[in-house]
Amino acid sequence: MRFFEDIEIGLRRDVGSFTFTADAIRKFAAQFDPQRFHLDEEEGRKSLFGGLAASGWHVGSVCMKLLVADGQSQAREAAARGEKIAIWGPSPGFRELRWIKPVLAGDTIRFSNRVETKRTSEKRPEWGILQARNTGINQRGEAVYSFLATAFVPRRGGGS
Amino acid sequence: MRFFEDIEIGLRRDVGSFTFTADAIRKFAAQFDPQRFHLDEEEGRKSLFGGLAASGWHVGSVCMKLLVADGQSQAREAAARGEKIAIWGPSPGFRELRWIKPVLAGDTIRFSNRVETKRTSEKRPEWGILQARNTGINQRGEAVYSFLATAFVPRRGGGS
Repeated sequence: MRFFEDIEIGLRRDVGSFTFTADAIRKFAAQFDPQRFHLDEEEGRKSLFGGLAASGWHVGSVCMKLLVADGQSQAREAAARGEKIAIWGPSPGFRELRWIKPVLAGDTIRFSNRVETKRTSEKRPEWGILQARNTGINQRGEAVYSFLATAFVPRRGGGS
Repeated sequence: MRFFEDIEIGLRRDVGSFTFTADAIRKFAAQFDPQRFHLDEEEGRKSLFGGLAASGWHVGSVCMKLLVADGQSQAREAAARGEKIAIWGPSPGFRELRWIKPVLAGDTIRFSNRVETKRTSEKRPEWGILQARNTGINQRGEAVYSFLATAFVPRRGGGS
């Protein structure tokens, strides 16, 4: 995790990939989104999706899991180099979330993000505010998922 | 689940409520969003959240679960009345998702939605496209969560 001052617009990171197995799709759906096309192969084939499709919330949650793991591994690397670690704050939300194409059983989605805007916070001078576009691409190179995230990022020296 | 023609702009539904226990918050976080303020009470208190806070993806997934259960119970009621059941299609995404305030351990969030726009699909005349604002309100009456969902809704008679 970097400090606000060290982050450049355009900075791009690959945050890892995940294969959505039929089992994983059905397990998430049973917990949080029990619609027929997320639970049953045949119902999925008959639907607009054309196959057993992951819940969009599953895709979003997996992307979040990979983003957190990537942040934690960056923090460990920085600590190993003896650098001060920036602890990012919570996200107030995001914009323009799009489930562009279905994620079907067996699809492997590679997630990446790219910093789009940064500004300092007026109310909280110790924090900067970052917007980053997160994108998921399937094994055929097709974009399937995208959202613009907002995050609070600490400033070096607490903004003083 | 209603047909496109039967849905009026402004139509509002209460879709149910959920209490985010510390256990439920930690269980979701361990699976999908293992950040310290979602896993540990003390870390939550020290964070901008001020307490053990639910992952935003947990709030979104719970809202989805309630929306699906509400749709299924509406479908059962329509079937019991001998009416034809409208099977809704998948959602292409949503806009303006906002995590407005933290959802902390013990908070009960009541979710509702309200139809904002409707239009017919040019490419797929058998479907209409609906936008609905989904909102979560805590036990103090504060809005904590909001998003504008898009859904494909079948037209009566297949749009013919």
